[in-house]
Amino acid sequence: MRFASDNGSGAAPEVMAALIRANDGYERSYGADAAMGRVTTLVRDLFQAPEAAVHLVATGTAANALAIATHCPPWGAAFCHTHAHVAEDECNAPEFYSGAKLVLVPGDHGKITQETLAASLATTGEGGVHGVQRGMLTLTNVTEAGTVYTPAEIKALTALAKAYDLPCHLDGARFANSLVATGVTPAEMTWQAGIDVLSLGGTKNGCLGVEAVVLFDPAKAWEFELRRKRGGHLFSKHRYLSAQMEAYLTDGLWLRLAAQANAMGQRLASGLATKPGTSQAHPVQANMQFPLWPEGTHDRLERAGAVYYRLPAPPGREVARLVTSWSTTEADVDAFLAAV
Amino acid sequence: MRFASDNGSGAAPEVMAALIRANDGYERSYGADAAMGRVTTLVRDLFQAPEAAVHLVATGTAANALAIATHCPPWGAAFCHTHAHVAEDECNAPEFYSGAKLVLVPGDHGKITQETLAASLATTGEGGVHGVQRGMLTLTNVTEAGTVYTPAEIKALTALAKAYDLPCHLDGARFANSLVATGVTPAEMTWQAGIDVLSLGGTKNGCLGVEAVVLFDPAKAWEFELRRKRGGHLFSKHRYLSAQMEAYLTDGLWLRLAAQANAMGQRLASGLATKPGTSQAHPVQANMQFPLWPEGTHDRLERAGAVYYRLPAPPGREVARLVTSWSTTEADVDAFLAAV
Amino acid sequence: MRFASDNGSGAAPEVMAALIRANDGYERSYGADAAMGRVTTLVRDLFQAPEAAVHLVATGTAANALAIATHCPPWGAAFCHTHAHVAEDECNAPEFYSGAKLVLVPGDHGKITQETLAASLATTGEGGVHGVQRGMLTLTNVTEAGTVYTPAEIKALTALAKAYDLPCHLDGARFANSLVATGVTPAEMTWQAGIDVLSLGGTKNGCLGVEAVVLFDPAKAWEFELRRKRGGHLFSKHRYLSAQMEAYLTDGLWLRLAAQANAMGQRLASGLATKPGTSQAHPVQANMQFPLWPEGTHDRLERAGAVYYRLPAPPGREVARLVTSWSTTEADVDAFLAAV
Amino acid sequence: MRFASDNGSGAAPEVMAALIRANDGYERSYGADAAMGRVTTLVRDLFQAPEAAVHLVATGTAANALAIATHCPPWGAAFCHTHAHVAEDECNAPEFYSGAKLVLVPGDHGKITQETLAASLATTGEGGVHGVQRGMLTLTNVTEAGTVYTPAEIKALTALAKAYDLPCHLDGARFANSLVATGVTPAEMTWQAGIDVLSLGGTKNGCLGVEAVVLFDPAKAWEFELRRKRGGHLFSKHRYLSAQMEAYLTDGLWLRLAAQANAMGQRLASGLATKPGTSQAHPVQANMQFPLWPEGTHDRLERAGAVYYRLPAPPGREVARLVTSWSTTEADVDAFLAAV
Repeated sequence: MRFASDNGSGAAPEVMAALIRANDGYERSYGADAAMGRVTTLVRDLFQAPEAAVHLVATGTAANALAIATHCPPWGAAFCHTHAHVAEDECNAPEFYSGAKLVLVPGDHGKITQETLAASLATTGEGGVHGVQRGMLTLTNVTEAGTVYTPAEIKALTALAKAYDLPCHLDGARFANSLVATGVTPAEMTWQAGIDVLSLGGTKNGCLGVEAVVLFDPAKAWEFELRRKRGGHLFSKHRYLSAQMEAYLTDGLWLRLAAQANAMGQRLASGLATKPGTSQAHPVQANMQFPLWPEGTHDRLERAGAVYYRLPAPPGREVARLVTSWSTTEADVDAFLAAV
Repeated sequence: MRFASDNGSGAAPEVMAALIRANDGYERSYGADAAMGRVTTLVRDLFQAPEAAVHLVATGTAANALAIATHCPPWGAAFCHTHAHVAEDECNAPEFYSGAKLVLVPGDHGKITQETLAASLATTGEGGVHGVQRGMLTLTNVTEAGTVYTPAEIKALTALAKAYDLPCHLDGARFANSLVATGVTPAEMTWQAGIDVLSLGGTKNGCLGVEAVVLFDPAKAWEFELRRKRGGHLFSKHRYLSAQMEAYLTDGLWLRLAAQANAMGQRLASGLATKPGTSQAHPVQANMQFPLWPEGTHDRLERAGAVYYRLPAPPGREVARLVTSWSTTEADVDAFLAAV
Repeated sequence: MRFASDNGSGAAPEVMAALIRANDGYERSYGADAAMGRVTTLVRDLFQAPEAAVHLVATGTAANALAIATHCPPWGAAFCHTHAHVAEDECNAPEFYSGAKLVLVPGDHGKITQETLAASLATTGEGGVHGVQRGMLTLTNVTEAGTVYTPAEIKALTALAKAYDLPCHLDGARFANSLVATGVTPAEMTWQAGIDVLSLGGTKNGCLGVEAVVLFDPAKAWEFELRRKRGGHLFSKHRYLSAQMEAYLTDGLWLRLAAQANAMGQRLASGLATKPGTSQAHPVQANMQFPLWPEGTHDRLERAGAVYYRLPAPPGREVARLVTSWSTTEADVDAFLAAV
Repeated sequence: MRFASDNGSGAAPEVMAALIRANDGYERSYGADAAMGRVTTLVRDLFQAPEAAVHLVATGTAANALAIATHCPPWGAAFCHTHAHVAEDECNAPEFYSGAKLVLVPGDHGKITQETLAASLATTGEGGVHGVQRGMLTLTNVTEAGTVYTPAEIKALTALAKAYDLPCHLDGARFANSLVATGVTPAEMTWQAGIDVLSLGGTKNGCLGVEAVVLFDPAKAWEFELRRKRGGHLFSKHRYLSAQMEAYLTDGLWLRLAAQANAMGQRLASGLATKPGTSQAHPVQANMQFPLWPEGTHDRLERAGAVYYRLPAPPGREVARLVTSWSTTEADVDAFLAAV
């Protein structure tokens, strides 16, 4: 009954097996390993993006911060949702790497709306040299509220940004979960929807620690490599990052893992929907949900051994954040539901 | 015959086994894993430093840059050897993280001398507010030239720095090799010799990718944690870093691995010493050496399948950088010597 | 009829006279001039702060950015009003100098309320290492809305910040205007109300270009000097900054100039109050006001030669920003009112 | 007998007169003043550079740091002389603004030689992503040793840099003195010799505090303006910067002032050449010299009231730094010589 975060799970067997295979013998270091070439080919094929540049780092914060720094000047505004991970959970890393300012754009259920983004775009930079300039757009899918943007929704937002020639980034820490939830292709969710650079998460979905940054336009690939090195994020024994990502993207493993996480999320939500006095703060669309339930439930679940985050709640209610992962089982969910 | 770098080797079996064990089940994330507690205890015991704060990162550049940033103000000078890794091989990461200036101190065979350090300390900051201020000292052991400082040599240098109240850092990317080479204890090589903060390398010596930053005075531990997060270097599935470091430091594995690397270095040097026209650019004291040999040797070795770096050489000679590792075998060395 | 900004006015005759006197002969550079000593004494006396450290820079943005950088760590949050000058009009300078994040706190009429600040303080940093930490509070008086905090209001806000041991900064680009508006002493408005560091504006109120940064606790004075130099803000011919500030603070000139600006603001507001269909967006308390008037007024005023900023307005209305200064005359105001 | 620095002198009468004139009435702020338009025209005409972008700041450190930041990426090396002002006297400001690393290039008498620059260029960046990349060249004329580069010497150095497509900056804190010393035109000394961006000093040569940054290729003008604002270096009452620079460049004032400074330097050097036991550390070519004289001379001069800097000296000798300025008179020089 561990629902605190998908990063509490371990790595999938296929990923571990690849890591063990990768350990054999000598290999070139700093990204020149043979597996990295195969990773690039895999990403290009999966995304129908034969020119894309692909780079690996070990943490999602590194992926996001480097992607933002590569696309937003120090005097620029990076537009993001008020509660985006880059704004709330990365201790200023995007600002540290880029020098830019995060401009917070509100919206219900973790999603920026066209209206709020248009308003923020319209006013930013109008003061000439005195204020930050329009810099870039950064979205998150799956959002921090557990909801999912469709490609059409993403395209509508990137179109607003592109009217000002702004590059668009997608924080895909849970990218595979968003694909499974919508049934679209990687290309549809990204470059076909106006995304220029993607943080493609592996860690939360069955890897040990690896994220790919995919630059659909490779023009800034060398700059990215220099920023990665300067940030201390270039692995010497890079083969271990490559091996994880290769296994993750091979034979649809990433989608199978995400499908399990999402299915368990739906099972959990369906079960909770039958409990009296229980509702959801946001639509449940992937592997993260925020149920409200009657007071006393937290303590009862704790006694039963459930682990998750408690969030601030309105009077008389309690709010939880529950995250399912690739390793969540039906038994886990059912035991939790029984304890509720 | 792979002598390009110790980071071309894989991970030791004990480390891989620990990683596999660590993968089982759920675990707390972001450094709250149980294994991290054991790592801290191991480091404190091995270093006889019961108060030390211990933090893990995945790359040596991250360890160094964060250690320097935590101890040197943005207007400070970090004194380092002219050819230190932090100066030449980290693409400005120390400056990026700290804002400080690296002041290069020359010395033969990769080692700062008391005279050159004293001279540099005496002149820096004398111009008042106009120039950078004395900030900190950062040494490297094993040095970039493959030589080793003794604790007495380190103490003599840190004493010069401490006369100005400067903190002292040791880049120990090959720290275990320096211990084996000198036969001293971790405490003698560090805090007893005036070192305040250590980058304790694991990656090059049998791990996949892990370095510990050891703060002998824990006063700055929380600042370090914030800088690590802000740099994107805090692992969510931190257990995999802990598992590596725990295995590495358990039952003397780190010293056994380094002993093998150093022994193979000595075997290689002894063999080369018998070859006509071959000499060493620097004393061979650990697992890295820089032989000079007659023209034509590079090509002969390449045809034989040897892999290593070629360096600029004086007329009529060739210079190589040869690094042995924990996985170098006597057969590797002997085959190389035969090919020479 | 120039009401665009108080920085459209020139320098007061007394300030120019001092500048001319200061030009005579040789003088020590970089802040070691004799006049700087007198400035420090003047500030200490006027603020009843015998220990205060005083430093001069030429722009308000430099004063604010350096003050913030000296008091907020790179992983800290600087709490400021949503529309503070540091947030909207300094092109990221505070973030550039400090590395910190500005956390925007809303409130009507340009003023942070106790409720909004308490709420922002309570939630910031609660996520541990993942988010920015509580760093400092920065207020502005006169506010960007032309309103004025009383010392009691400031004290109530700084008390909330000090409950978390946060330093408090006051952006006093129009500090003299706030003193005149409230009738309190410099000490009452600053350190007695919990302010630790003040940007004391001279430029907008009759100087050419000079601001004093007053550190009521001098412990960080040397750090400030290094940051100033590192930012390129230390004047070599510093005597010209000193001369301006000395004249400005001598014999109450600063208060006389501000009194004229405020009085002309009141005269303007009183006159506008008699115009049909005209109201004020914010209470008029100093030398800046934001009247709403009927459509067509802008064009009529422009034809009459009036200069000021037009702001976004609700349907059927127009909004102006009108700023009076030390050099605004009754004739200016009356001509403007006649043209309305 | 004030020879400590040219920034110990006041402003020339023509400059002060312009400042007083500029004070009259209202003027647009933040660089939109009419005088700034005239300054741009003056610079373009004097430099035969009709496209050049011209921006004003108040300090030489700001001019240099902003010029470097605009032309060197954060992972770049800015090649400069070992004793350049940007390296020794700006407390890390160039690094702070740019993120780049200053790579020190030695050379006698303050001048980089073709050999040393070629060697430094050849080795920098050869390590791929691991080290800083070649970024830009920054020269100083008049040098810190008081010597002067000819246009041919500058061209030979910039040609080496341009072989790697590097932009070239000239720190011209004493640019007028270099023109007078060589008799060449501003164009010959700058863009015709391969200089892309110039810090054109006014402060040391008769202004109160103003430097122009001249971008011969205006492509980066807007970026420069944003960096200037973000650094807090955009003056609100910008007219006072414009007025100084306009007067300075009008009717050859800048060259007349520099001619006086240089002539007094020559008079001083000629007089010293007749003194027994006195020699010069560097050729005396402009307004700064470094005589060596017998022990005891310092004290004798101090008693006579002379003011200048004492430098480290070889045994038995003393070394001084003597700077003449636009306001140095023949009487000053002769009195000094008499006291020697």
